[in-house]
Amino acid sequence: MKNTFGQSLTVTLFGESHGPAVGALIDGIAPGIEVSDEEIKRQLSRRRPSDNLATARREPDNYQILSGVFEGRTTGTPICISIPNTDTRSGDYERGKARPSHADYAAYCKYHGFEDYRGGGHFSGRITAALTAVGGILLPALRKCGINIGTHILRCADALDRPISGLDDVRYLSDAAFPVLDEACGEKITEIITKARESCDSVGGETQTAVFGLPAGLGEPWFDSAESMLSHAVFGIGGVKGIDFGLGFGFGSAYGSEVNDAFRNENGKIITETNNNGGINGGITNGMPVIFRCAVKPTPSISRVQKTVDVVTGENAELEIKGRHDPAIIRRVCPVLDSITAIVIADMLSQRYGTDVLRKGIN
Amino acid sequence: MKNTFGQSLTVTLFGESHGPAVGALIDGIAPGIEVSDEEIKRQLSRRRPSDNLATARREPDNYQILSGVFEGRTTGTPICISIPNTDTRSGDYERGKARPSHADYAAYCKYHGFEDYRGGGHFSGRITAALTAVGGILLPALRKCGINIGTHILRCADALDRPISGLDDVRYLSDAAFPVLDEACGEKITEIITKARESCDSVGGETQTAVFGLPAGLGEPWFDSAESMLSHAVFGIGGVKGIDFGLGFGFGSAYGSEVNDAFRNENGKIITETNNNGGINGGITNGMPVIFRCAVKPTPSISRVQKTVDVVTGENAELEIKGRHDPAIIRRVCPVLDSITAIVIADMLSQRYGTDVLRKGIN
Amino acid sequence: MKNTFGQSLTVTLFGESHGPAVGALIDGIAPGIEVSDEEIKRQLSRRRPSDNLATARREPDNYQILSGVFEGRTTGTPICISIPNTDTRSGDYERGKARPSHADYAAYCKYHGFEDYRGGGHFSGRITAALTAVGGILLPALRKCGINIGTHILRCADALDRPISGLDDVRYLSDAAFPVLDEACGEKITEIITKARESCDSVGGETQTAVFGLPAGLGEPWFDSAESMLSHAVFGIGGVKGIDFGLGFGFGSAYGSEVNDAFRNENGKIITETNNNGGINGGITNGMPVIFRCAVKPTPSISRVQKTVDVVTGENAELEIKGRHDPAIIRRVCPVLDSITAIVIADMLSQRYGTDVLRKGIN
Amino acid sequence: MKNTFGQSLTVTLFGESHGPAVGALIDGIAPGIEVSDEEIKRQLSRRRPSDNLATARREPDNYQILSGVFEGRTTGTPICISIPNTDTRSGDYERGKARPSHADYAAYCKYHGFEDYRGGGHFSGRITAALTAVGGILLPALRKCGINIGTHILRCADALDRPISGLDDVRYLSDAAFPVLDEACGEKITEIITKARESCDSVGGETQTAVFGLPAGLGEPWFDSAESMLSHAVFGIGGVKGIDFGLGFGFGSAYGSEVNDAFRNENGKIITETNNNGGINGGITNGMPVIFRCAVKPTPSISRVQKTVDVVTGENAELEIKGRHDPAIIRRVCPVLDSITAIVIADMLSQRYGTDVLRKGIN
Repeated sequence: MKNTFGQSLTVTLFGESHGPAVGALIDGIAPGIEVSDEEIKRQLSRRRPSDNLATARREPDNYQILSGVFEGRTTGTPICISIPNTDTRSGDYERGKARPSHADYAAYCKYHGFEDYRGGGHFSGRITAALTAVGGILLPALRKCGINIGTHILRCADALDRPISGLDDVRYLSDAAFPVLDEACGEKITEIITKARESCDSVGGETQTAVFGLPAGLGEPWFDSAESMLSHAVFGIGGVKGIDFGLGFGFGSAYGSEVNDAFRNENGKIITETNNNGGINGGITNGMPVIFRCAVKPTPSISRVQKTVDVVTGENAELEIKGRHDPAIIRRVCPVLDSITAIVIADMLSQRYGTDVLRKGIN
Repeated sequence: MKNTFGQSLTVTLFGESHGPAVGALIDGIAPGIEVSDEEIKRQLSRRRPSDNLATARREPDNYQILSGVFEGRTTGTPICISIPNTDTRSGDYERGKARPSHADYAAYCKYHGFEDYRGGGHFSGRITAALTAVGGILLPALRKCGINIGTHILRCADALDRPISGLDDVRYLSDAAFPVLDEACGEKITEIITKARESCDSVGGETQTAVFGLPAGLGEPWFDSAESMLSHAVFGIGGVKGIDFGLGFGFGSAYGSEVNDAFRNENGKIITETNNNGGINGGITNGMPVIFRCAVKPTPSISRVQKTVDVVTGENAELEIKGRHDPAIIRRVCPVLDSITAIVIADMLSQRYGTDVLRKGIN
Repeated sequence: MKNTFGQSLTVTLFGESHGPAVGALIDGIAPGIEVSDEEIKRQLSRRRPSDNLATARREPDNYQILSGVFEGRTTGTPICISIPNTDTRSGDYERGKARPSHADYAAYCKYHGFEDYRGGGHFSGRITAALTAVGGILLPALRKCGINIGTHILRCADALDRPISGLDDVRYLSDAAFPVLDEACGEKITEIITKARESCDSVGGETQTAVFGLPAGLGEPWFDSAESMLSHAVFGIGGVKGIDFGLGFGFGSAYGSEVNDAFRNENGKIITETNNNGGINGGITNGMPVIFRCAVKPTPSISRVQKTVDVVTGENAELEIKGRHDPAIIRRVCPVLDSITAIVIADMLSQRYGTDVLRKGIN
Repeated sequence: MKNTFGQSLTVTLFGESHGPAVGALIDGIAPGIEVSDEEIKRQLSRRRPSDNLATARREPDNYQILSGVFEGRTTGTPICISIPNTDTRSGDYERGKARPSHADYAAYCKYHGFEDYRGGGHFSGRITAALTAVGGILLPALRKCGINIGTHILRCADALDRPISGLDDVRYLSDAAFPVLDEACGEKITEIITKARESCDSVGGETQTAVFGLPAGLGEPWFDSAESMLSHAVFGIGGVKGIDFGLGFGFGSAYGSEVNDAFRNENGKIITETNNNGGINGGITNGMPVIFRCAVKPTPSISRVQKTVDVVTGENAELEIKGRHDPAIIRRVCPVLDSITAIVIADMLSQRYGTDVLRKGIN
């Protein structure tokens, strides 16, 4: 299932950056879920570039729902969301010269030159607009089940935000103009990205995502662990190059006696004193918040002259990229990660509790 | 597919630590692949605890192939491998007290108390014996296709091995008594693990895996990216809490101009000057070695008194684990990661080139 | 995967009869396959009602390809085909009274009343327009691989067509104005359907499908037999209530000595003297033509007064259906069966020979 | 998923007729389901040949459960059932000459000569022993949820049993010594099969299966219709060549006004007056009994001299089969169909109601 994620609730992505539209198809969603134009627009606008920290391409993201919604609610049948492309300047792209660290060359090898090369084609970040529209349906539905998801920039170059410390942070992030918890850090990041853009460069970062309100018992013992499903989905984004859960790479120099999460019965609810495991033990959620970090690489498209090859002729070449690009995707990736996480959680819930779970709630 | 990985070539795991057997079922493997008892035994012995760095439980791992192999070769039908459990001391385990950071509590929530709690049951590292047997079939088959896979300990506490620098390192690792490249580092790690054991503690680490010889063009654009498939499979191991590719988390403070991998035509072969992307662009292999790191947490089972709850009564409790345990799994996880990686690669090849690829080779 | 068929090459259907559009998403198709507007239109027109044997609803079927096609060829990424609905008269439908033998009541139970009830919603035959558009891409691609698919009406009430006797029949059917081999039978069927319409009734039938040019060795030994895959896909059509292969139900009163298909080497090619098994032995194709029959029930929507219940109130009721309906779908189902068969064959080929097979051909 | 059926609850088959064992792996079953040795043995004995109507091969079917069961109940983790082969006479089989209508030639093409050819290898009816063991776990679990499944011989040559007329018939069949409803018919079938054996021949037949107690709303609108799932699974059996639901092929000469199933509210429960649709409308169960027929071909292995080819040399040849064979599988296929049906139903329930459904019941 090449462009599809999920088992009980699935999402398939389609579209090319300079084709007629990008879109997503949701199948297996419970019937009766409210579909709010406002929520979808809000989620789309969180991803949409709107200032000079982002690409100059301006898409209105006037999404269309072609199926699966009736009288404002899901019918239970597939929802096809299409977002037409309007602001395309295909002339900016020339066939042949592979942009370093972008998918161009790998796609050429995979598709033998038949791929739509313009603006990254099917590999373009543009397709994530469709993902955020999906989030605009799933995130509110999960909130009604008591599940809140939030993502912020944890790092951009040497600017570090403070980690998420509770449900209030997650709620704050769902509406924040800039996805950081510490305002000063936000200003520093703005400065870093602006400087990168001015120097025809790009910059990477780290995100942190938290999921509050998950029941214990989600995920499977071996290959479909909660970490497996989340990482699988998250690595769908080309710019993500790493993920870890809880203490993650910090475990590499740790001792069990320091980092084991002791259990405790707190007023009838079993919790852990620390959450170094990021809410997952042996691949199964343990009722604590699920916490993970993602490493996001700098946008490969920079306006400097770069060495590369022409994929058609095979010859060495120099490339100066002219298209409109983001100097950093670290900010725009936050709502995309929220949406992806929502898909994974909604699917895990549907598998465990059945296809009506999003409407009926857990139990 | 709860305990199954793969689409064209699949592997399913079964078994409990103290049940009759652990095992694996391989489906979709090409017919005519040599199945060598020697290779399977070698792979099993790499994982098997054999000295006092590991658990005192000693299993001979006398595997049985119940199906799918005829006259020394695969038939193309499902191969069921069973490895009987013999050295079990179930009396070491008491029902109820959840071991901190282990799957006990999460499994209790998932399976409502019907799970086999003895020795971690289906969550036990014992099941990885079956995984390594699978590797004993797939790794030699991939080598015949020109694909070599190797894993070493990159870090254990403050001991750091040097990174894999070429195919020779990978070849060396496939037979190394201790999976490190720098002998001195190996001694330091031995010391660290020994000390952890002596102080009733455990210690974490990092691994690095490299795959040489992959063709460009494997993986899918969105949800089945090469990173998605590898991370999905790798997080099947309960102790793994992070993965990154190439520069990975190092991208978080990097600039595009520093880390983009320039393409170059070197004698007719297109390569990249650097390999910060770990052989994958936009989710698709680019022909460079695939490189990833895993973060492995300290074994949760330590012999010190720990605070926990009794999952049956819900009451707070103290636990002193008596079973036989590894003070570190970082060493034994290396052949397991080789095997898991082999499964992912074999599946990706089968999807792209068809079900006979492992016998016929690529192209 | 509720509305998706296939493993390596997949097709997902979406849309409601009276919603904005119906459509299909193809994923996993080889890059470089020609997409011909003429072929798609021809396939759509074969299904489209065009005379008074069919419903009075007239849809122009102006399909749009939203993604996955570039410069007239497939890119290898998902193809989303949307066919807007234009000629809808939703006022013809009232909520509540379940049409006997139609999906209304079952859908109400499944979707709890949130389904789009107008004109059968997602269960409408209208969705098969999208299926035939898919066939308009796959059928020509298969023909270039030497594989020809054809379907005709074998029976309608007491009118019987002669069975397909060779490749020429299949070629004839791909362009036939009326899908029968015997012209006189076609006239008789026309008469039967006309009479049914005039008496406010509907009539059932049988189809026969043949696939010529398949290599031996497709299909899997147990649950993914060639018969399993074909029947799975064919029963996607609500009106199909039976399928059999080769002699099929004729086997029930047969003896092995009469019906076993003897093998013979004919000029270097191994064939069977008879083809009672319909080209499939033990679930695997044997190189002979694959032949199957489908039983198609009379359209449930008839204009007579029928007894039923109101699904909302649960009360007994009488129903007189007013919408525009087909007195028989047996004719229109033929191109739909061609398309469905093409999907199954294309997927089986992709699984066995890899994702490029439709472009490179079988080898 | 070549030898696997199901999505939420899955079953994988493995083994060869003359290999060490045949077996099945169940994944996704709810924890806490009773596993009764008596029920499994009863189901195995219903399939096991025990008189001279069946093959002379006598296997004790001493099954072993290798995993997934603890203290007499399912744990929720994979259950691996292995049934060792003991009574094998591999000398009876010679490589090369394809048995007409058997899988030998097709398997040779698929597996390129690496298949285990002895006794049909992986295509042998012997593998259905494992399927019936699975039924020995699932059938009692479904009964506790109020769902009863039964299969009988509807036809064998010209002997016709009466159709299933209610739940009592289904209950009767679950324990019947010979799977027919009309005793006289049973005697006639015994005679027909005996005569076929005596004349070195084999004979086909038809079965009828009924499922009582299903809730309305199971199945999916397009490709995963209830008919799709059932037919997919049933065609896993090589001898099955046709399936139809309700009136099935009888619809081909019927008119809507005659066969539409009128709905009626009977004391608060919505039923249909007739059940020509076999309990399924538009692919979704409607709460009426699900009824289907299967066409079963005569066993291809007959002891007469037959014309064939040698698959290795490609030359024409004559074959006289010496192995021990069934003159008819129509009797033994009944418990196998019960088991397969149980798998499909259990999976559909798990998808809709979640993974705990078999323990908690529907609702």
